[in-house]
Amino acid sequence: MSESEELHKGLEGVLVAESALSYIDGSVGKLVYRGYAIEDLAQDASYEEVLHLLWHGHLPDSEELDAFTDAITEEAAVDDTVLDALAGLAEADEQPMAALRSGVSMLSAADPDDADPRDLEASLEKGRRIVAKIPTLLAAYDRLRRGEDPIEPRSDLSLAANFLYMLTGEVPDDASAEAMDQALVLHADHGLNASTFTSMVVASTFADMYSSVTAGVGALSGPLHGGANQDVMELFFEIEEQGADPVDYVTTKQEQEDGWRVPGYGHRVYKVKDPRAKILEKRAKELSEASGDTTYYDYAKAIETFFTEEKGLDERGIAPNVDFFSGTVYHQLGIPVDMFTPIFALSRAGGWIGHVLEYQEDNRLIRPRGRYVGPENSDFTPLDER
Amino acid sequence: MSESEELHKGLEGVLVAESALSYIDGSVGKLVYRGYAIEDLAQDASYEEVLHLLWHGHLPDSEELDAFTDAITEEAAVDDTVLDALAGLAEADEQPMAALRSGVSMLSAADPDDADPRDLEASLEKGRRIVAKIPTLLAAYDRLRRGEDPIEPRSDLSLAANFLYMLTGEVPDDASAEAMDQALVLHADHGLNASTFTSMVVASTFADMYSSVTAGVGALSGPLHGGANQDVMELFFEIEEQGADPVDYVTTKQEQEDGWRVPGYGHRVYKVKDPRAKILEKRAKELSEASGDTTYYDYAKAIETFFTEEKGLDERGIAPNVDFFSGTVYHQLGIPVDMFTPIFALSRAGGWIGHVLEYQEDNRLIRPRGRYVGPENSDFTPLDER
Repeated sequence: MSESEELHKGLEGVLVAESALSYIDGSVGKLVYRGYAIEDLAQDASYEEVLHLLWHGHLPDSEELDAFTDAITEEAAVDDTVLDALAGLAEADEQPMAALRSGVSMLSAADPDDADPRDLEASLEKGRRIVAKIPTLLAAYDRLRRGEDPIEPRSDLSLAANFLYMLTGEVPDDASAEAMDQALVLHADHGLNASTFTSMVVASTFADMYSSVTAGVGALSGPLHGGANQDVMELFFEIEEQGADPVDYVTTKQEQEDGWRVPGYGHRVYKVKDPRAKILEKRAKELSEASGDTTYYDYAKAIETFFTEEKGLDERGIAPNVDFFSGTVYHQLGIPVDMFTPIFALSRAGGWIGHVLEYQEDNRLIRPRGRYVGPENSDFTPLDER
Repeated sequence: MSESEELHKGLEGVLVAESALSYIDGSVGKLVYRGYAIEDLAQDASYEEVLHLLWHGHLPDSEELDAFTDAITEEAAVDDTVLDALAGLAEADEQPMAALRSGVSMLSAADPDDADPRDLEASLEKGRRIVAKIPTLLAAYDRLRRGEDPIEPRSDLSLAANFLYMLTGEVPDDASAEAMDQALVLHADHGLNASTFTSMVVASTFADMYSSVTAGVGALSGPLHGGANQDVMELFFEIEEQGADPVDYVTTKQEQEDGWRVPGYGHRVYKVKDPRAKILEKRAKELSEASGDTTYYDYAKAIETFFTEEKGLDERGIAPNVDFFSGTVYHQLGIPVDMFTPIFALSRAGGWIGHVLEYQEDNRLIRPRGRYVGPENSDFTPLDER
């Protein structure tokens, strides 16, 4: 391994691992999971099929899918120790992403398995337990803070439908369940983003899967990573409240607030429109038209049209990313705005777990270097002489 | 930023940040915090002074130290929501590192501050709250699992003495408090190790300090990172139980178990004896002689003498690291073996927080690349045709 004095702040462009999970070509707006185009998966594969693809390397046949789905469904319940703690957090008005971070961390206490951390089969099972329980955790937390009792998961619903059922108490209609499932498929993996890389760094010490996923949730909670879909929705609420024209509103804000950017716009990786945004745009349109209220969808399109047609893409190739339309979809499903990022975590946990398992198969502790820029040979003076 | 196709697995040798916090010269066994030799700090500075040095850039004078210590002491209590959750985890026989991960994560719920995540002054305060509360969390957890009630922190004790007091219910004697304090000083920072880097990756999204420290605890819980001091002690217990000669025992084990290594021996960074090991060796000797039981200290010295004098350092320059003697010190203080790594976390949280604050001052999102090695253009087949 070569040592170089070049500083790679942000590690942009630095190759840290080989991965067969997902590939992004940002110049043409292409995203694949194990070679499958995201458009095909979003159209015809469920989140469970995608998890199987990411973790086991291939799309399941019916028999494999049934076994896989059953194994998830069986693990969906969350025990009272964790639910009691969530109730305490709800009482303290904790933010949902922080509650999820604590909830996932606590899940390890009930893990029946005390396996060697290098046993990848056991780690996969832990991953399956975590993904099975996150919808239950999130739905329980949202209900607890509304003063309602958590609802137990059903064994006859998909992960996406079960989440909506546990959140609302009602089995969702097909259109809602499909929209939720599609959103989960679209967010499941996206190369070595900051939260995925966080999970890998933790896993490189052979810490257990709970530590990796907990850390991933923490990283995703940061405003530079996971919060933009919420920001988009809050922008739309502001525009509506002020009865403003959406294009006037954002252009005025850009002029008046130095450094303000349209949330959900632009991406470090994509130089054209994010392929996930195209799919969610269509979904947002369908759900909005079906509900008879296209306000937020119309805002989104008006802003996008202005930037692409009237103003033209700027030299950085700024276009809508996945967050620009996902909020409108979730809002149409009746989901509170501060649950948008937790739902991102719910889905992305599948990717984190996949990358952890892949990295640990040929593990190397991740330990970079810092360039020391502090003082040399400071003379120590004891406290009473300072 | 240059893109290169070289794979930097483990990021060994890759510079990811500039840092003024600590410098290691592994070839000569030198460690400094902001230019001060670890030997001087271990001899004459308290853990609180070291925290002030790491976080504020200079060793405090008496007035600054009093204010800093008061601010920590005032924040040492942990609220009932978290203590109740710890009781639940104790009931489920959760491992202490996992309980600490959950406990730190839950602390955010009681944080009075809802500041902008980019407000570094507010982040520093969160860091101070976390460091103040970790000793309380850990001591409470150890008592709860023994069926005893947690003890509230005192306002007249140092962080190290308070920890021992809350653990045992008795104010420690000076020798014990000093030994604990010294161990905390020695573990506070050590360049961009895996847990510190984890905290920085999380912080690079501007996630809050609770997310960074929680992730750091997770990373440190991995057997490739934080667990070796416990492994050393368990090795010594085994040797004692079998009435074996320590050198015979480890050499036989090396011959019989492929890949087995003496725990607490060797380090990716040090090619000579870890300077922290030298200091802790002296402390282990003093405490052992004072207690009248030098068994484990004698084992450690016998093994070290064999490897260095009789066998000679091998070409990789393997020598005792910090973990080789710390366990004997903690054992002499009456601390249970599975609390050794949590104590490492207690101390290192100071370093994690220091690096987070330093990195966020000139932040850049950490997002490396992966080399895609998966299939290209897989043909999608719907489930019913698979």
